[in-house]
Amino acid sequence: MIYMDNAATSLQKPLQVEQAVLEALRTAGNPGRGAHEATLHASRLVYGARAAAAELFDAEDASRIAFTANATEALNIAISGLIRPGDHVITTVCEHNSVLRPLYRLRDRGSMLSFVGVDARGNLKYEELEAFLRPETRAVVITGASNVTGNVTDLSYISSFVKRNGLLLIVDASQTAGEELFSVQKLGIDVLCFTGHKALLGPQGTGGLYVKPGLSVEPLLVGGSGIHSYDEHHPKEMPTALEAGTLNVHGLAGLAAGIRYRMDQGIEKLQKRERDLTRRFYEQVKEIPSIIVYGDPAAKCHAPIVSLNLSGEDSARVADALWEEYGICVRAGAHCAPLMHRALGTVGQGVVRFSFSHFNTEEEIERAAEAVRALAEEA
Amino acid sequence: MIYMDNAATSLQKPLQVEQAVLEALRTAGNPGRGAHEATLHASRLVYGARAAAAELFDAEDASRIAFTANATEALNIAISGLIRPGDHVITTVCEHNSVLRPLYRLRDRGSMLSFVGVDARGNLKYEELEAFLRPETRAVVITGASNVTGNVTDLSYISSFVKRNGLLLIVDASQTAGEELFSVQKLGIDVLCFTGHKALLGPQGTGGLYVKPGLSVEPLLVGGSGIHSYDEHHPKEMPTALEAGTLNVHGLAGLAAGIRYRMDQGIEKLQKRERDLTRRFYEQVKEIPSIIVYGDPAAKCHAPIVSLNLSGEDSARVADALWEEYGICVRAGAHCAPLMHRALGTVGQGVVRFSFSHFNTEEEIERAAEAVRALAEEA
Repeated sequence: MIYMDNAATSLQKPLQVEQAVLEALRTAGNPGRGAHEATLHASRLVYGARAAAAELFDAEDASRIAFTANATEALNIAISGLIRPGDHVITTVCEHNSVLRPLYRLRDRGSMLSFVGVDARGNLKYEELEAFLRPETRAVVITGASNVTGNVTDLSYISSFVKRNGLLLIVDASQTAGEELFSVQKLGIDVLCFTGHKALLGPQGTGGLYVKPGLSVEPLLVGGSGIHSYDEHHPKEMPTALEAGTLNVHGLAGLAAGIRYRMDQGIEKLQKRERDLTRRFYEQVKEIPSIIVYGDPAAKCHAPIVSLNLSGEDSARVADALWEEYGICVRAGAHCAPLMHRALGTVGQGVVRFSFSHFNTEEEIERAAEAVRALAEEA
Repeated sequence: MIYMDNAATSLQKPLQVEQAVLEALRTAGNPGRGAHEATLHASRLVYGARAAAAELFDAEDASRIAFTANATEALNIAISGLIRPGDHVITTVCEHNSVLRPLYRLRDRGSMLSFVGVDARGNLKYEELEAFLRPETRAVVITGASNVTGNVTDLSYISSFVKRNGLLLIVDASQTAGEELFSVQKLGIDVLCFTGHKALLGPQGTGGLYVKPGLSVEPLLVGGSGIHSYDEHHPKEMPTALEAGTLNVHGLAGLAAGIRYRMDQGIEKLQKRERDLTRRFYEQVKEIPSIIVYGDPAAKCHAPIVSLNLSGEDSARVADALWEEYGICVRAGAHCAPLMHRALGTVGQGVVRFSFSHFNTEEEIERAAEAVRALAEEA
């Protein structure tokens, strides 16, 4: 089996992740109040994950990281916790439904939305930002990279626009956390939402959000917190403010191991390897007649994603053939990013998405390119 | 180490749970759309967990079970998804902050609350229910058992009250799921909220809710769903309606194994063993002068919990001594159930909670009772 569906979830995890999960399953109690070793150990595991995430993203301190079950929960918290009826939000057609649907729900309640478009290569039309500005504009909600094309957002540009206009910057880092080296402080990011099970190589059921000091996000979930039990309201201090109930300590132990692995190996070294594999694949498939590649995989910055179609072939049929005839795992269809497919003209067809990890080998890349070539010739 | 903090989280998990998590970590892709083996396998793992939970609770079918990160998330979804401003809710002083805080938040938005009290033994004053009824009463939200005293709620009584008055019944099964054999259909439960990491013996980061067919719960989280990608609204079909983003497949594989283990061993057999251990401990400690036991552990139905204090000793000091001098893990303090502590008169002192699992041995029970006796003599 050749796994090239890493933008959906990374399947090959470092051994350290497995070991950390297993160790936690055998030793971790419920963190929070309690004085016995199992509960203290659980608290230390959670703190270790917070500290690792804070270091990776260059957060001010570990308390700025709150954990969630996935990026979707983090995005729901950030969006519904900061945007009010009457507020205007600028977002883009590149967004995933985990951004779009929380925003559409707010629009139903009186918020307003504008969508920055893309050019034929799927690159954002940054010049549209200025034109969308209104007195009510409160935030820019934007992905770090398109999960369809792999095109990376110029967050420095976005950040300077946001700062110049006194807006909030909420970033969906589902495709970029662990993949790119960046600093939330240097980029002036107010809220960064991330998932643990993709490039961070952690278990599913993990994710979280960074919240800039001084910014207060209204919680979506309230409940047991282990502190201030007699207060009728959920505590307001980060990270407890955005966490309720028992955390996924077993998963977070694995996430900490995944983040540490990625940092120990070197974020930029792994990114270079993944970009090299991506480029190698792209250079071969783009030469095949009848293959349409979406996005701009030759750009200086690009997520390890190559999405393509075989002329008019249904993407699901191509993905099926890749799996059944070649044992290659890719994803087809709409990728939960409806506006992007409209912009690319692939609503009916979907796209076949190859997404790579540093665990992929050059030989796997060759075999995948070979398979695409063979399918294109058959078609 | 003697672990007696199972009402916070079960530490000893069956080997099958570890194995299932490990197997999933090595083989599970992202469920949802996709045709390759890793994604299909992930979908099957999730379905297996749904089917196991549906069988355990006697749900109509597996689609009635939606998964969440913990019971708190399930309770937030159920409460905020069903109760509207102007609605009146009857709840109890036994509730955990995972019920109380979502309800207080709704009260701030115009819902109304009434709290059924308890007698000196911590048993609910069921006769108060009738008196609280109003035309606006919409639901009873109630725990299956107190996490402080272990007293079990008479859900048959509650259910008949609820049915007679056309109300909704929302049950917090954090302390009873997997512990007691019951049928949501026979009990007429509309929504059952459960956690995976306590008596169900699964990993942390798992839980969910059963929703009765025909009942529509407004989702708290919206986002990617793998289906209906072009719809601006989150899908309305269960279970997708109440799930958004990537599920914790690794954790759910473990949860399925935990539920299957519990069912294979026999829910009633394990419950009898846990009740025998509880009774054995209770019979010894209740004889110790200066020991106050809360709740009614001699009752026919009782969760495997014995909470006590040593006359006026601070509960945290006693718990510390149990850990440091005897290696016994218990929980002290307020247990996130503020109204219960007010009712018991233990707001300042908290209580020392022993909570058992069938993995505890008779010898551990003897040693724990011995430790309490020794500490009581020292005090």
